[in-house]
Amino acid sequence: MMSAIHQAAQLANGSLLAADLMAATLARIASEDAALGAFTALLDLPAARQQLTQLQASGMGPLQGLPVGLKDIFDTADLPTRYGSALYSGGSQAEQTPRVDAAIVGAIRRAGGLVIGKTSSTEFAFLNPTQTLNPNAPGRTPGGSSAGSAAAVAAGLVPFAVGTQTGGSVVRPASYCGVTGFKPSFGLLPTPGIKCFSWSLDTVGLFAASVREVAWFADALSGFALQLDDAPEKSWRVGVPSAYPWGPVSPSAQLAIDTGVAALRRQGAEVIPITLPAWMKDVFEAQDVIQGFEVWRSMARDIDAHPQALSKVLRDYLMAARSISAPAYEAAQQTAHAARTACADWFSQFDVLMTPSAPDEAPLGYASTGASTFNRAWTLLGLPCVNVAGAVGVTGNPMGLQIVGAPRADKTCLAAADVMERALKAQA
Amino acid sequence: MMSAIHQAAQLANGSLLAADLMAATLARIASEDAALGAFTALLDLPAARQQLTQLQASGMGPLQGLPVGLKDIFDTADLPTRYGSALYSGGSQAEQTPRVDAAIVGAIRRAGGLVIGKTSSTEFAFLNPTQTLNPNAPGRTPGGSSAGSAAAVAAGLVPFAVGTQTGGSVVRPASYCGVTGFKPSFGLLPTPGIKCFSWSLDTVGLFAASVREVAWFADALSGFALQLDDAPEKSWRVGVPSAYPWGPVSPSAQLAIDTGVAALRRQGAEVIPITLPAWMKDVFEAQDVIQGFEVWRSMARDIDAHPQALSKVLRDYLMAARSISAPAYEAAQQTAHAARTACADWFSQFDVLMTPSAPDEAPLGYASTGASTFNRAWTLLGLPCVNVAGAVGVTGNPMGLQIVGAPRADKTCLAAADVMERALKAQA
Repeated sequence: MMSAIHQAAQLANGSLLAADLMAATLARIASEDAALGAFTALLDLPAARQQLTQLQASGMGPLQGLPVGLKDIFDTADLPTRYGSALYSGGSQAEQTPRVDAAIVGAIRRAGGLVIGKTSSTEFAFLNPTQTLNPNAPGRTPGGSSAGSAAAVAAGLVPFAVGTQTGGSVVRPASYCGVTGFKPSFGLLPTPGIKCFSWSLDTVGLFAASVREVAWFADALSGFALQLDDAPEKSWRVGVPSAYPWGPVSPSAQLAIDTGVAALRRQGAEVIPITLPAWMKDVFEAQDVIQGFEVWRSMARDIDAHPQALSKVLRDYLMAARSISAPAYEAAQQTAHAARTACADWFSQFDVLMTPSAPDEAPLGYASTGASTFNRAWTLLGLPCVNVAGAVGVTGNPMGLQIVGAPRADKTCLAAADVMERALKAQA
Repeated sequence: MMSAIHQAAQLANGSLLAADLMAATLARIASEDAALGAFTALLDLPAARQQLTQLQASGMGPLQGLPVGLKDIFDTADLPTRYGSALYSGGSQAEQTPRVDAAIVGAIRRAGGLVIGKTSSTEFAFLNPTQTLNPNAPGRTPGGSSAGSAAAVAAGLVPFAVGTQTGGSVVRPASYCGVTGFKPSFGLLPTPGIKCFSWSLDTVGLFAASVREVAWFADALSGFALQLDDAPEKSWRVGVPSAYPWGPVSPSAQLAIDTGVAALRRQGAEVIPITLPAWMKDVFEAQDVIQGFEVWRSMARDIDAHPQALSKVLRDYLMAARSISAPAYEAAQQTAHAARTACADWFSQFDVLMTPSAPDEAPLGYASTGASTFNRAWTLLGLPCVNVAGAVGVTGNPMGLQIVGAPRADKTCLAAADVMERALKAQA
């Protein structure tokens, strides 16, 4: 498939017209998404035309009108917003449409992107599954919570999509669907206008077909220099933990790691076996405390006024989270703060870490969206993470490798992920 | 006037009825607020009754139905929300009413508070003034951006009100109106559902008639132990800076500081003259960079699609903020991070700082809401700040003293402010 970066160049030089690409994209979604279920709302043709006209009038940013899918956990003033929840799915389309756009919508438009539709989110970006299927692992969950964004990119319906991660909601579905997922450093992309779950953790993340494309997309949206060039490669030092305090390494995860290590070595990278610091277990547990304390507050009206409109899994979680005390929350925040400070030193031993992106291949069936255990600690630490696709698990389904970068080292993290991706392709 | 804490005790023991207090509050606002202009929306009597019934059904928290004014920068699903902006003031009342409550609304309700109305905000909590007058300094601005919350409490219309501070929008109007204003540590009170100006800076703050009451209110809303008891007092060490990198100490500010120092000494406190660290100037400047970079993104749709619906002062600010680069923003965040880390050590020399709350008494007239210069650095550092009322400037109008606490030492900050307040009352 043609890279989106190349498509943007064609759009810029006029050999491809944004209006044609948009119409073809809408037509393809109309024909294929009924079976996939990645989108919850789409622009109609006149609205899409009008938005392209506005992008052109405001001087078309680098995306040049490329279509973008946006997780339905972000408020949009031009498309209905339901947060994957029955509670917000009633009423007319006008009633389902907020007045205010999430900040990321403005960032996409200023970058020249066309927000062509909303992609499915699990209920409030928690665990209750969506209707979305996994285009690259039939019969298995696409993961969550950013299910629709991962699936839409995996199916090639859009070149780019936006999601959010509070535990593992970008890297995990990317792993299950076999696409690139990038959870940047906390604060790189703006969060206002997300239906908040946890204000200390909710992070905007991106999906694309490759690391180069996701880096280019992140550069365009953020204003930070993240594009990957073809500069001579450094000699990478990649730390590979031998064990994790949050759970065992499954056969599929081990297979992917072995594949990744072999590929990296063939590229001349130094692979350094490491032991995770003792505080990593505390970080993992602190993530859960912080998430629970905050969501009990951010979803106050939803649970207090409409408990029966929530899924049982979410209602039970909230009722348990209710008992987390302010001192426990404060202690968890102190743990996070100390660990973030310690990370800078810790990362002096290696350039990036490589870990499994998820506990396993995508679970069979659609009752569960899998587990975020391999992502939560990095989310709380605010470290950049990329899911690199290309490896498989024991049944031959996608099993992602997660590259974790040092604090604020998003570009280094993306560059290492690019090396990893090319190493996997070279051996494929 | 009877303390709200005492009123809550009366409500709890039945010697005062929440329904009577509510009706009396609505009647008093109806008769007095036409002249004051503190409220932009009020519950009607049936809606207020219904909400009291709901509070009772859910087991009435410590506020026992006490009425609370809420700045109209917070989304409310029961009251129209206009953000002080012409852009959000069109359409029907239903169209002006969001589906989602800000998290602080849930916190108020769980604490037993009745959100009785919305209080005026300057346009998007920036500088364009409201219609609100200053009940304690006739002919002068009440300050901004939380003008209505400060004025409503100053006029005794409600015992408590909630505001937000991004630069100085709680402490400054409290200073100008002669009431207590508390800007807690960053993160103590939840921000989701604010119309975001700057996600790194927007902080929820509180207004009350006294320090004891604001501490009690903050305790009830946050779940953190902040109530002030009558334990034997410690011997306080209060640092008083001799000069500030952000501007001169006006005669009114000096008069208030002299009054405060004399009062503290009579209470046995040690007053320590200090020089602010050199990095404080960088912090002050970093606040402006961070605010500008973020608001250009958070208000993307407002400025991009509706520039003419914004005031000139805001539009000009946004167009200037547009040119702040990502590296400049990153550097400002690094400055903030380093300074926050340095604060813990720096505060070992004293328990709290005492500074002017504002550059001067409230400016004459209503064209300006004054300046946040004496607040911005503390906001960026995330330090707890209390405006203590009781001192006056050279024309006899309110001139507040700002108590600034160490990182996360909200209770110490409130306790010192309480000592300061009683010291001022003792000498009055």
